[in-house]
Amino acid sequence: MVEITLLSEADLRRCVALDDQAVECVEDGFRALGTGTVVMPPILSMAIREANGEVDVKTAYVPGLPSFAIKVSPGFFDNPALGLASTSGLMMLFCARTGQVQALLLDNGYLTDIRTAAAGAVAARHLARADASHACILGAGMQARMQLRALSLVRPIRRATFWARDPARADAAAREMGAELGIKATACADPATCVAQADVIVTTTPATRPILLADWLRPGQHVTAMGSDQHGKNELDPASLARADLYVPDRLSQTRALGELRSAVQSGALPADARFPELGDIVAGTAPGRATPEQITIADLTGTGVQDTVIAIHALRRARAQGLGTLFNT
Amino acid sequence: MVEITLLSEADLRRCVALDDQAVECVEDGFRALGTGTVVMPPILSMAIREANGEVDVKTAYVPGLPSFAIKVSPGFFDNPALGLASTSGLMMLFCARTGQVQALLLDNGYLTDIRTAAAGAVAARHLARADASHACILGAGMQARMQLRALSLVRPIRRATFWARDPARADAAAREMGAELGIKATACADPATCVAQADVIVTTTPATRPILLADWLRPGQHVTAMGSDQHGKNELDPASLARADLYVPDRLSQTRALGELRSAVQSGALPADARFPELGDIVAGTAPGRATPEQITIADLTGTGVQDTVIAIHALRRARAQGLGTLFNT
Repeated sequence: MVEITLLSEADLRRCVALDDQAVECVEDGFRALGTGTVVMPPILSMAIREANGEVDVKTAYVPGLPSFAIKVSPGFFDNPALGLASTSGLMMLFCARTGQVQALLLDNGYLTDIRTAAAGAVAARHLARADASHACILGAGMQARMQLRALSLVRPIRRATFWARDPARADAAAREMGAELGIKATACADPATCVAQADVIVTTTPATRPILLADWLRPGQHVTAMGSDQHGKNELDPASLARADLYVPDRLSQTRALGELRSAVQSGALPADARFPELGDIVAGTAPGRATPEQITIADLTGTGVQDTVIAIHALRRARAQGLGTLFNT
Repeated sequence: MVEITLLSEADLRRCVALDDQAVECVEDGFRALGTGTVVMPPILSMAIREANGEVDVKTAYVPGLPSFAIKVSPGFFDNPALGLASTSGLMMLFCARTGQVQALLLDNGYLTDIRTAAAGAVAARHLARADASHACILGAGMQARMQLRALSLVRPIRRATFWARDPARADAAAREMGAELGIKATACADPATCVAQADVIVTTTPATRPILLADWLRPGQHVTAMGSDQHGKNELDPASLARADLYVPDRLSQTRALGELRSAVQSGALPADARFPELGDIVAGTAPGRATPEQITIADLTGTGVQDTVIAIHALRRARAQGLGTLFNT
């Protein structure tokens, strides 16, 4: 019998937010990844075609941390027709010394949203120009909003432009985020204009064909592509990766299979064996980040198990400090 | 918010036993595997060397079943020195149509013990002679006992012999199981004699070097090797696989990497590309099982995600029928 802590989504929303601490813990995770001591096996992925669904399992062990997380992320894309969210899932924390279950974080994907947005902040902090003030967000969903919040934590964002296939949704996102952040935020019907004017661009869509063309990019810009996390997704024109001065994957082995790099290699824009410094290498200082204000940089984020381990540990600490959660004897 | 069912180990011990129904549901799982429609991705495995630990994640989707399970099995081999079991873990059930969490089965490995023993029964039912009455068990741990119980469900076992490196443990297992099953059960100090006299042999150890030599085998015997489930484990003399008339893996891709087949190929006893019918093929009737009473048959069991999915569904049904479990709103 083991006593474990159960945390509901409501508990987790009470104690974890997209704030400096969340960004810092995800940055620490990338730093650990950059030191080469993290154990992070390939993602376990199972497709359930009959239900237009997929389930992914991610994990990572970070030496020195007391626990490791395993995250299960189901994505069932016919759910909205049933009145349910497409994504759900949970994280589990295990003792790194004994393997015993410590906590079940029944977050329905909330912590994934936080750690994904926090990775966007980490990428911007290390790759966007320090004076980047104009953000362009392609997409108008929940991560579109969260990525703008994340940018605002690390860069002096004063202006935001949203583009989405559905202009009404872009407009709604702009109104909401303008009010929330106290900045000028507008929708833009033309993605080329929207991208060209910005200092930092984040793509947050489930697109399967490029929504950002290489010709639209201007010197000094940083792009974070966070929408592609599966075979078949693609947000960036393959030529944009070739055009960038610095391309930074969160995990090279993953972006080759699931990220923008996959499409760039497939189209012949980049060689299959091309090597790039990972975000963790840049955070750890073992590879250079942005070198000049004129460089074009691209971060390709597919989501890593190390982000799950660090955010789950952060959440359990916060929950315990606030007396949240339910004890359960297994 | 989703309402899920939490089942503790005590709940699960109350409603699931190693009985005919458990064997039948695991047999159904293998039959589904044999039809080729099951989706079963490779095992996710992460080693934590600092703690002499490993964690494995298994899953399988069986078309037609309402749910799929994901199982997390930590094995931390320094735990006994801390007064803890080496293995622990949990299973999760997800709706096969929406991906939403349905139940958390906090079994600390209990359901794995049941489904592992049940697979031994399925192998014996399809591969041991129908009149097999003398069992030899190599090993004297919990699975040694459970595998003998499993054999007794499917074959007219009247005599059992236990061998273990520690004779006192073999003696204790023999006394206990003789009394429980009402059969003659003894410990045997010489494994060669112990093996040679039996109709059906089960190896249940964490050995890394062969404990059963090919020369000890006699015509008509069936051997189930269930101890090896990791790179580096090995119970059967590689020559025994070459000598067998029929070698049956639970999952060929797994036994090549983790089972007895790995050692047999490594030693050169069998070619790396050798193909064999899987246990599911034999259960489904798409490949022949034992053809004559004289054949020597070997089943190589590494443990499959499909067993986890079927036993978890079985357990949730039983628990609901008995009103067991705790509801929790995520």
